[in-house]
Amino acid sequence: MALLSVFTPVLAVVLCLVIGFMLVKSRETETSSTSPSKTKGGTKGEKRPWVDQDLQDDTDTTAKEGDDDDGDWGDSTEEESLAHVPYSPLRYPEETMLQRSEEFYTLMNQRRSVRFISPEPVPREIINNVIRTAGTAPSGAHTEPWTFVVVSDPDMKHQIRLIVEEEEEMNYRQRMGEKWVQDLARLRTNWIKEYLDVAPYLILIFKQTYGILPNGKKKTHYYNEISVSISCGILLAALQNVGLVTVTSTPLNCGPKLRLLLKRPANEKLLMLLPVGYPASDATVPDLKRKHLDDIMLHM
Amino acid sequence: MALLSVFTPVLAVVLCLVIGFMLVKSRETETSSTSPSKTKGGTKGEKRPWVDQDLQDDTDTTAKEGDDDDGDWGDSTEEESLAHVPYSPLRYPEETMLQRSEEFYTLMNQRRSVRFISPEPVPREIINNVIRTAGTAPSGAHTEPWTFVVVSDPDMKHQIRLIVEEEEEMNYRQRMGEKWVQDLARLRTNWIKEYLDVAPYLILIFKQTYGILPNGKKKTHYYNEISVSISCGILLAALQNVGLVTVTSTPLNCGPKLRLLLKRPANEKLLMLLPVGYPASDATVPDLKRKHLDDIMLHM
Repeated sequence: MALLSVFTPVLAVVLCLVIGFMLVKSRETETSSTSPSKTKGGTKGEKRPWVDQDLQDDTDTTAKEGDDDDGDWGDSTEEESLAHVPYSPLRYPEETMLQRSEEFYTLMNQRRSVRFISPEPVPREIINNVIRTAGTAPSGAHTEPWTFVVVSDPDMKHQIRLIVEEEEEMNYRQRMGEKWVQDLARLRTNWIKEYLDVAPYLILIFKQTYGILPNGKKKTHYYNEISVSISCGILLAALQNVGLVTVTSTPLNCGPKLRLLLKRPANEKLLMLLPVGYPASDATVPDLKRKHLDDIMLHM
Repeated sequence: MALLSVFTPVLAVVLCLVIGFMLVKSRETETSSTSPSKTKGGTKGEKRPWVDQDLQDDTDTTAKEGDDDDGDWGDSTEEESLAHVPYSPLRYPEETMLQRSEEFYTLMNQRRSVRFISPEPVPREIINNVIRTAGTAPSGAHTEPWTFVVVSDPDMKHQIRLIVEEEEEMNYRQRMGEKWVQDLARLRTNWIKEYLDVAPYLILIFKQTYGILPNGKKKTHYYNEISVSISCGILLAALQNVGLVTVTSTPLNCGPKLRLLLKRPANEKLLMLLPVGYPASDATVPDLKRKHLDDIMLHM
């Protein structure tokens, strides 16, 4: 009995330690499973008083990871060692600049996302030039972290379609659960992507999230998603410039399946899928308007 | 004494609970400060057997959030209700397409990131047209989630410079801690951003992470960063088209400070800062090369 009363505090301590350990463990699991949403946009250890409303820049998160990086793209150590050469591009008179800026705006303003693509063939060399043009985009530390997979093989296009439609149908059916009153027939047209078979080319754009150094180590590609998206912007401009159409799409959840289908390595992730061709003769687009300059620009 | 021996287990329990609570707390802090890197790329509850090497697409994360979204940008409910109109853009003969694709590639391939910008004034209307052009980019569900702040006021430019340089200097000094043998003078040129005073215009590009619905609720802008980056790609093309230069920069950690300086609302986050003008007469660029087409494109 005396022995027991001596051991009682010891037992209590052991019991509490076990409970404490379980608490820590459960909290850990909870945090790791909820953290993707909690930490979206990044959290920093350092307190910054000017950050309000839990809004932090994604660039901050990137910055924290990128201690070998600079805000200016291209100031990489590699590039610092490169010789500098004079740069004196063509300079236009002011009237020419004004005219060119108006013409380019008019051309780009005619661009629309088009889902009705003609099966007519398009010369390969034009596609090559369009991709070459996309490859002139700037990128973080000049990593050029993009891979453009151009698919014209009908079987491969069809396999891509099957993967995309399967995922899209799942997305829509999940939506149907909430909005079951909506017209199934109308929704159905949304997960059927006929253009994936019909368009003469599908361009699948992968971002390379990291590279492999000569010593075999991984090298993070900072700003890879922004870089590849900029490159896509230039690609869209190049397509519009030759009269070809596309629809910007980011196939939901299909990335890993499509990456395996196209045998792309693990460091590449699908960012965008663009079906490319001439518009179908009966192509239509929604009658939408763009914001006015005053609604997107401020001058100070 | 008997009273004490009765209370000993109770005291031990209390002590353990306190220790356990402290452990949980400390673990919590630790997890939240390390999670940005841990959860980079996102984690999904659902297991997907084809996802290997802990690589998951960022698009998947976005998709999870975007249950009212579609892979095709523009299939928003809002847009579904819009009337469709015929779309028949200009069609060029094949030879013209080929020629245009070559000319546009040549033009874009001359673009370089330039840090030596001339103070010469540039007509405002040209900048307006360039921003108009950027505003023609596609965006998720046609949200057009971009704000272009054009700064030409010398005081404002200087305040921006001070904010950017302060942060850049901190970044470099942290690097210095590790690479103290490196030449301070050489590094110093990296955090001095003279062009922020000199360039006639600074264009600060903000992404609108969410919008406000008529009922006052927040509306997430899906793919806002990708959309705004695409828009920046078109902006870079438009600048190159008129013979103006810039350097793509994503100022580290400065977003919140610059947002407050420019009085932008909390839903906007700085994505990019572009100093814009003519190149200085003695401008130089690093003698770097771009990847060959075969290194960025695959055809199947």
